[in-house]
Amino acid sequence: MNKVLQFEQIGGPEVLKFVDQETPEPAPNEIQITMKAAGLNRAELLFMGQQYLVDPILPSGLGFEGAGKVIAVGSEISRFKVGDRVAITPAFQQNYYGALGSIVNMPETALEPIPDNVSYIDAAAFWMAFGTAYGLLVLKGGLTENGGQTVVVNAASSSVGTAAFQIIQEHGGTSIALTRDQKKVPGLKEAGADHVIVTSEEDIVERILDLTDGRGFDIALDAIAGEAGETLANACAVEATMVVYGLLSGAPSTSPFYPMVTKGLEIKGFHLSWHLLDWPDRRSTAVTHLNRGLANGSYKPLINRVFAFDDVQDAYRYMASNDQIGKIVVEIDT
Amino acid sequence: MNKVLQFEQIGGPEVLKFVDQETPEPAPNEIQITMKAAGLNRAELLFMGQQYLVDPILPSGLGFEGAGKVIAVGSEISRFKVGDRVAITPAFQQNYYGALGSIVNMPETALEPIPDNVSYIDAAAFWMAFGTAYGLLVLKGGLTENGGQTVVVNAASSSVGTAAFQIIQEHGGTSIALTRDQKKVPGLKEAGADHVIVTSEEDIVERILDLTDGRGFDIALDAIAGEAGETLANACAVEATMVVYGLLSGAPSTSPFYPMVTKGLEIKGFHLSWHLLDWPDRRSTAVTHLNRGLANGSYKPLINRVFAFDDVQDAYRYMASNDQIGKIVVEIDT
Repeated sequence: MNKVLQFEQIGGPEVLKFVDQETPEPAPNEIQITMKAAGLNRAELLFMGQQYLVDPILPSGLGFEGAGKVIAVGSEISRFKVGDRVAITPAFQQNYYGALGSIVNMPETALEPIPDNVSYIDAAAFWMAFGTAYGLLVLKGGLTENGGQTVVVNAASSSVGTAAFQIIQEHGGTSIALTRDQKKVPGLKEAGADHVIVTSEEDIVERILDLTDGRGFDIALDAIAGEAGETLANACAVEATMVVYGLLSGAPSTSPFYPMVTKGLEIKGFHLSWHLLDWPDRRSTAVTHLNRGLANGSYKPLINRVFAFDDVQDAYRYMASNDQIGKIVVEIDT
Repeated sequence: MNKVLQFEQIGGPEVLKFVDQETPEPAPNEIQITMKAAGLNRAELLFMGQQYLVDPILPSGLGFEGAGKVIAVGSEISRFKVGDRVAITPAFQQNYYGALGSIVNMPETALEPIPDNVSYIDAAAFWMAFGTAYGLLVLKGGLTENGGQTVVVNAASSSVGTAAFQIIQEHGGTSIALTRDQKKVPGLKEAGADHVIVTSEEDIVERILDLTDGRGFDIALDAIAGEAGETLANACAVEATMVVYGLLSGAPSTSPFYPMVTKGLEIKGFHLSWHLLDWPDRRSTAVTHLNRGLANGSYKPLINRVFAFDDVQDAYRYMASNDQIGKIVVEIDT
């Protein structure tokens, strides 16, 4: 049986169900993969709720990333062969392909090789988190090697946040994590945050200025927007950059006019596929850097919990609870 | 008599009055100038109304730019000598110095030489408009020589707007002017706008997409913000830049999340002093470029009307009426 996760109506995890579906032969540009693991993402919750940037076409598959082994290749494929271990990045149309199945087809352009010493679980948890964090920090934020930059990361417990700590550290920068929850402070420090600010208890702007000798942040990664983003903007250094990539607050910020005009704060948006993976030169630079870090252990996804594929609804419910730090993965046992 | 314009209370043009005030000897870093002309700016209306980025200290002088002849120099001055013709740029503290007087002192760092063949009126009308437009376009917007870029300019009748048309043309770009007022279309075209959209009558986004074969703008200069800025953002090309430098609508925009995340639109702020004149390398590049254009006639400020110094209140009232295209100047006859 080929178990494929599907939903026929818009909703939360309760709409997900398994269907037994034969996977067709791969098209000329496709690769067929027997899946071993898939990283889960908040974007998938938004997608099944029709609140993502791309709308599902019902009945829809699901799953933006994962890892597995090649079992068949289309007629035009030369980059991969049967037996290769491959990671699925989200460089595919989410309303056409999905990673959550026992056997899936994927366009070759979505795939990257998995370094030899890296597990399927780690490979499945890597690309959305580290690809996004890399793009936010290096491509958009202007993080440089040994630039001595200070980076603020809100929604810091997410897989992107915890990946960002590692990339900031690797570049010689300093990370400041923002979290609402005092209980997460030890976990965030363990995950690599240099400093943690508890936003429900501390004055964010004052604390950031304290931690930077009054300069303010050089880069901020904002997944929340709304008032949280506006407040954060006031702690910027001269000609800092704020990169917005989520709307967890439910609403965009009011453009921070005063920090923009007085300090020269720049505001940018980022999307992993559209601004990185779809651009061959940017992708090549990022993949080289990230796969080297993954292979040598300097980049290691923080796995919070691994669920069995059968428990995928529970896995998404657990994600929605916001209790975790790091990545939630399902293991697909075929 | 040394006539100096002053205000002792916050308000509109009615609070302005002339005082007869002896100008002290210039300090070591200052230059004393007999003024010939001063360009008027909306920022001065905001300043006297305590709505600018810097608050006045009462009683306050006024005037962010102008032109005149050096009549004395401080002990540390080597760059200028008595008799030199100098333009006053806004690279000074507006709550400490003002250009609107018969004889004024200015810090040397505020001044640039006036090319030989350029009138005091033109020199007085040049720096706020062309310095700002240059910074918005080249420094922040990424306008390049022969880049074939399309630039949208709102509040296009302003001196910054009309200067922008010339700088865009000089760089081989295409300008699209936005105006509320159908009556201004011929004047804006005469001022150098390649296309004009009347925002009260036309669909801005649709027209911009039409004019760019569906691509959208590469750069937008936004002096209005609020809903106008949000709407404009939807007409951006991939990885376009929007530079915000005013709040004529009275309110900042909501951050345009979707164009930022889907198209990669970047939003930047700009202020002539803080992001250009105060940075020696940027200033040197800009002054070389702009003074060359001013000297060879490729850059020529569009003077709408010249008022006598005694009629300066009327000049500001005329500016507030928004009927003009281009710069309002007062001639100072000493």
